[in-house]
Amino acid sequence: MAVDDDLYGKLRLELRRGTLILAVLAALKTERYGYTLRKVLAEAGLPIDEGALYPMLRRLEEQGLLTSEWREEDKRNKRFYRISRDGTALLSELAAEWREINNALHNLIKKA
Amino acid sequence: MAVDDDLYGKLRLELRRGTLILAVLAALKTERYGYTLRKVLAEAGLPIDEGALYPMLRRLEEQGLLTSEWREEDKRNKRFYRISRDGTALLSELAAEWREINNALHNLIKKA
Repeated sequence: MAVDDDLYGKLRLELRRGTLILAVLAALKTERYGYTLRKVLAEAGLPIDEGALYPMLRRLEEQGLLTSEWREEDKRNKRFYRISRDGTALLSELAAEWREINNALHNLIKKA
Repeated sequence: MAVDDDLYGKLRLELRRGTLILAVLAALKTERYGYTLRKVLAEAGLPIDEGALYPMLRRLEEQGLLTSEWREEDKRNKRFYRISRDGTALLSELAAEWREINNALHNLIKKA
């Protein structure tokens, strides 16, 4: 198409950005360490760079939305992450918001 | 809940932001002027401030995604907006992207 790829890429990224926290929190209902978290997100269709994921995890922990713990597994120390109680409450609110936006968009795109 | 409302509000906004261009482009498959565009978005559940809408419309026009035209209606000059051919192509790509993100999130939230 004539629209330059940069613009499409930018809008595509903006579309994903807001949903990533939702995806990360949902994936962390199961305790995971960084590598397995990235894997589950990528398999779901939401790949995320390490350079974006780790700052996000730190921020979410500072905000009290997840907890982390260093533990040895297969003779290596790994940092395991899991959603907190506050994170679970926030996730359920954001998921409801997401469903609302979805309905709105669905109607607009269908009607148009 | 314990998470402060500011944080929820911020994340909620971030979730909406990326979808607004999608919503605006979809709503402009029908030609509308600012007031009726805001009305249809608000009715769909995606209210947007004038202060955010008009800069976005200008940007989308600069990017060639929509066209606008001044015309008199009910004895008042109004600027009418409509999606362009490039905008239609972009909308269909973004809508496909949106469906993909949706499936990914749906699976993550369900599985979690």
